Amino acid sequence: MSEIDFIPRPDQFVWTFGGAPPVATVQPGDVLRLWTEDAFGGVLQRTDQRPSELLDTRYLNPQTGPFLVAGAEPGDTLAIHLVAVEPARDWAASTTVPFFGGLTATDRTAMLHPALPERTWIYQLDRARRTVLFESTYPTAGGDPLRLELPIDPMLGTVGVAPPLREVRSSLVPDTFGGNMDTPEMRAGVTCYLPVNVEGALFSIGDGHYRQGEGESCGTAVEGAMDVTLIVDLVKGGPDRPAPSWPRIESDDHLVVVGSARPLEDAWRASQVGMIGWLGELYGLDPLDGYQLLTQISLAPLANVVDVNYSALTKLRKDLLPPARAYDGLHADLRARAAALR
Amino acid sequence: MSEIDFIPRPDQFVWTFGGAPPVATVQPGDVLRLWTEDAFGGVLQRTDQRPSELLDTRYLNPQTGPFLVAGAEPGDTLAIHLVAVEPARDWAASTTVPFFGGLTATDRTAMLHPALPERTWIYQLDRARRTVLFESTYPTAGGDPLRLELPIDPMLGTVGVAPPLREVRSSLVPDTFGGNMDTPEMRAGVTCYLPVNVEGALFSIGDGHYRQGEGESCGTAVEGAMDVTLIVDLVKGGPDRPAPSWPRIESDDHLVVVGSARPLEDAWRASQVGMIGWLGELYGLDPLDGYQLLTQISLAPLANVVDVNYSALTKLRKDLLPPARAYDGLHADLRARAAALR
Amino acid sequence: MSEIDFIPRPDQFVWTFGGAPPVATVQPGDVLRLWTEDAFGGVLQRTDQRPSELLDTRYLNPQTGPFLVAGAEPGDTLAIHLVAVEPARDWAASTTVPFFGGLTATDRTAMLHPALPERTWIYQLDRARRTVLFESTYPTAGGDPLRLELPIDPMLGTVGVAPPLREVRSSLVPDTFGGNMDTPEMRAGVTCYLPVNVEGALFSIGDGHYRQGEGESCGTAVEGAMDVTLIVDLVKGGPDRPAPSWPRIESDDHLVVVGSARPLEDAWRASQVGMIGWLGELYGLDPLDGYQLLTQISLAPLANVVDVNYSALTKLRKDLLPPARAYDGLHADLRARAAALR
Amino acid sequence: MSEIDFIPRPDQFVWTFGGAPPVATVQPGDVLRLWTEDAFGGVLQRTDQRPSELLDTRYLNPQTGPFLVAGAEPGDTLAIHLVAVEPARDWAASTTVPFFGGLTATDRTAMLHPALPERTWIYQLDRARRTVLFESTYPTAGGDPLRLELPIDPMLGTVGVAPPLREVRSSLVPDTFGGNMDTPEMRAGVTCYLPVNVEGALFSIGDGHYRQGEGESCGTAVEGAMDVTLIVDLVKGGPDRPAPSWPRIESDDHLVVVGSARPLEDAWRASQVGMIGWLGELYGLDPLDGYQLLTQISLAPLANVVDVNYSALTKLRKDLLPPARAYDGLHADLRARAAALR
Repeated sequence: MSEIDFIPRPDQFVWTFGGAPPVATVQPGDVLRLWTEDAFGGVLQRTDQRPSELLDTRYLNPQTGPFLVAGAEPGDTLAIHLVAVEPARDWAASTTVPFFGGLTATDRTAMLHPALPERTWIYQLDRARRTVLFESTYPTAGGDPLRLELPIDPMLGTVGVAPPLREVRSSLVPDTFGGNMDTPEMRAGVTCYLPVNVEGALFSIGDGHYRQGEGESCGTAVEGAMDVTLIVDLVKGGPDRPAPSWPRIESDDHLVVVGSARPLEDAWRASQVGMIGWLGELYGLDPLDGYQLLTQISLAPLANVVDVNYSALTKLRKDLLPPARAYDGLHADLRARAAALR
Repeated sequence: MSEIDFIPRPDQFVWTFGGAPPVATVQPGDVLRLWTEDAFGGVLQRTDQRPSELLDTRYLNPQTGPFLVAGAEPGDTLAIHLVAVEPARDWAASTTVPFFGGLTATDRTAMLHPALPERTWIYQLDRARRTVLFESTYPTAGGDPLRLELPIDPMLGTVGVAPPLREVRSSLVPDTFGGNMDTPEMRAGVTCYLPVNVEGALFSIGDGHYRQGEGESCGTAVEGAMDVTLIVDLVKGGPDRPAPSWPRIESDDHLVVVGSARPLEDAWRASQVGMIGWLGELYGLDPLDGYQLLTQISLAPLANVVDVNYSALTKLRKDLLPPARAYDGLHADLRARAAALR
Repeated sequence: MSEIDFIPRPDQFVWTFGGAPPVATVQPGDVLRLWTEDAFGGVLQRTDQRPSELLDTRYLNPQTGPFLVAGAEPGDTLAIHLVAVEPARDWAASTTVPFFGGLTATDRTAMLHPALPERTWIYQLDRARRTVLFESTYPTAGGDPLRLELPIDPMLGTVGVAPPLREVRSSLVPDTFGGNMDTPEMRAGVTCYLPVNVEGALFSIGDGHYRQGEGESCGTAVEGAMDVTLIVDLVKGGPDRPAPSWPRIESDDHLVVVGSARPLEDAWRASQVGMIGWLGELYGLDPLDGYQLLTQISLAPLANVVDVNYSALTKLRKDLLPPARAYDGLHADLRARAAALR
Repeated sequence: MSEIDFIPRPDQFVWTFGGAPPVATVQPGDVLRLWTEDAFGGVLQRTDQRPSELLDTRYLNPQTGPFLVAGAEPGDTLAIHLVAVEPARDWAASTTVPFFGGLTATDRTAMLHPALPERTWIYQLDRARRTVLFESTYPTAGGDPLRLELPIDPMLGTVGVAPPLREVRSSLVPDTFGGNMDTPEMRAGVTCYLPVNVEGALFSIGDGHYRQGEGESCGTAVEGAMDVTLIVDLVKGGPDRPAPSWPRIESDDHLVVVGSARPLEDAWRASQVGMIGWLGELYGLDPLDGYQLLTQISLAPLANVVDVNYSALTKLRKDLLPPARAYDGLHADLRARAAALR
């Protein structure tokens, strides 16, 4: 087991899943200490900046990676355990990008409205209090802008591998290969399971959010650079160990499946059928029994309703279920390995 | 303030919002002690019963009501405070209704598949432990059926008023008038605010669930008869006191707006724009500032992805927001009145 | 067989399907000569008029009817044969209603955009040329407004019966009961088959369009009052003569099924499965064979992408199919009866 | 101007838009005489063959190309004029692929149904009569299988260029770059205009259909190998000559814009806004005037409701519009060049 430090130089960023040569080869079990740039490439820094003047769609969501995982083959399952996800700057940014977001006309939900106004919000981080400060652009009824201290809950918008079918997808896309899922569940302490589609898996991460609401309404969370420590591991495939059809996330307390599609009900459906499959693997539970059980215990927080595909979650409390050892207890093992790191 | 007890006789049920004469007239401030039949009219009682043989679409979701609220006029806001929602039987039922549910072809998502198998699950209630028992139909990997004790979290699937535009809607429908929203948030301790569309509001309740997952995957929760205590109140409309465009729910800890539409993203959009409006009313927050704030703090649990319209929520933690007194502090006042009841 | 003339007085209009007493009782086979007001109640007459000042949602799509059809019972099929649909005025109107239409934010596809500008277009009818004149509000590249003579193709936006499940729906709604389907196929010469849901069927018509594009993009076609002659007939139900699940339209050349739902793919799916059912009735064609055949010969023009439900069509050329006598040749019989009328 | 003949060897097929080296470099104005394999790679030949045994998703829709167009740069518009599209075999095939199609559960519209039965239909071509023969698998009411002679209307399912944003997409995908649009409008005699996203455009064609219904219900049309003659041309970009945001098709009689998205209403919206933009370019027509005009004259046939994105069309009759010379009359010029070819 090695520890690998990697801070991408500006010329090392990539903006796709698949299609780029690996920046390094890693072994299953390796610990990676990485730095990720924010979704805007770090250029949005002041509230008077306009995204239409500064941002170029080709350079959003720069990825740290891809990393080639030695021995990973199609049919295997890649496990990414997030040991730590910590703000790497003292500020973060959010903005309204023209024709992008959940409550605006877009290139697909095409309408005749002019774009919403462009505005940028800068969030100052208080490391001691672990909060960021929201400040409204306009004064409120009290005569002052609204200022709210919001607890940080750092997460990664993108964790993804190279897609199947020879495709190369923009780092703005979430799909079966993970990618830009933009779910607050992707925080330190979880293990993310992704299907391996190409030799070496070629995973990358990026798009750190100091916090994000479910749905990511305007399309950009509290976007900030991150220091990320992760452990990569590999579950070899086999007849009784199929790669997951959709990304899975395991925490100490929850099992999660992430579906990504449009319309939004299809994202939810994919996550539900994915979870019924997981319950079948874990307990031998019949699919209709799984359907019934989800009906009564599923949590269904949205991830994003803004990206190329929308992402919805099926999330289960472990304490409502019988004990189970997904992937032979890999998550607990990774937690232990992470605890031993410092 | 009166206390009104009402247990509907079989001939007193109604299956619509709007279109039925009131069973009683109540005054703002009145306390109602009601009983609600389950969604199946009480007929599903054994696991060997098939919904296609026993259920008639015309008699699902029987409503207790409607109640005419004296003085309620279009433009007013009706407040329903749920004091208590308690199981009225020791068992409840769930089932797969042919061509109804989230993971099946339906009359609208029309396909060429035969219907999924019909199965019925009966849940026994343990009042002392406040749990219901899930038991899988088929044995699992361990050789036995899966048995899980699930904590109850009693709620009402339907809380609704008569619709606008002279419409009469089936009690299976959620929309701007509330109705069959099927959200687990509709539990004891909350206040639900609904727009008054017709003289007297004509509200009714029903469709009790001993518990329900977010999304209500198969379409029927842990369906059971309920004893419900509620306080009804009225907020007169005016230029600075508009009726809400979508149902609002207030608890001690959260503000919620419920949107209902298809596709699911539109249900979410409606709830988001509804909440931005509410933040504007509460704080004078500019809509784009509200959009930004929701992006970072919104919770977005699904309600149902099975009904005539799907229902999605925008839910905010009050402790992240400045203190506010929605409707002049009506919820706190109702909580106090409820506490004094016994 | 009687001939019945009916021009509604202003106090006789209704704005719902279901929920209103019949204006007259008719017998199967009767000929009705009717007049229908335009969707705006006749109030939009000049290009400087703004819909937000003149229109009230409660009074849109006034219906002529409902008519009680003697002997019609649930399970029967109502046939409405349109003998003539002719402009009753020399002008018609169209407009952009705030937050209504296909390329604008709406109450459901809720966004933060202000409403699109309100504009009204008035179309003059040239009866001899059978054209209406489109004139653009703004000058074009040539320096003048664009003026286009467009051939009229008169049709009815609404043909509907009372809904099932005790519902009363606004005349703005299309669904299984027909209603506001807004399809250009509803022109003179066709027979529309609708399921009977209540005693007497209670059908009504209205919402004449001098012409309309497929999709009805902005939500209001060339809206004008109409003189309508129709023959009503009844097909009694039975085991081998089920009422159609979705509205059917038969012309001399085509068979059409209209599905209405959101999202739009569900409207299309409903129309496809409806047509596969019709092919089964007509030829005994196996459903998968029907699926294959539709794949190769279905026409799929949109009706509207603006109403409460969107409407999509499955349309087949009769000359590609074996001869068939739907409903024992009722359409041909009605054509003959219509021809004999003058 | 050169004439280029190219029949791909089996090792020369590609299955993506973008990501593959060009098979040849062509000049604007060149005539290409090409052969395209069918969507199944030619392997489905008998009605007893099952797609799940013979088809591999990685090898569907093999493309002939890509061709590098000399001088093509991002911002330019590529014109592909289809001179001839003729069946290259005497038979064609269609089939139901498990979990693919418009009336079945899919990987995204995920459900718990088993797959629909797999069936294959083989169509024999009668070159003299220009028909293919549909034969039902099962006998119909008459006791025999249904046999229908259907006129051929040969078309290409895929015409596409390399995508923007460094993406590589499967040849199963339709999007802004064209691709697997599966519209019957892509027949001989039309000119297709596509945006150039990368140096050389890198266009390819494939997926010939001897005929196809609108919607392509089961997902596979009358799939057959094709002999295709086309002329490629280039419109250099500039401030007044923007590349189209969505694919455009021009025939002698119609203007068409193809939108591809999910849900289906977004595909339609994209095509509508795209056409309003085109009308603006052609006539200087104000967007709201364009919206109004489309409302009254738009045709809206569906293309496919089965692919990764669904495709919908906005289609206008030229004879309802003032004369216009799109791209300086390029289509008429290409028609003349095509006529001179033999």
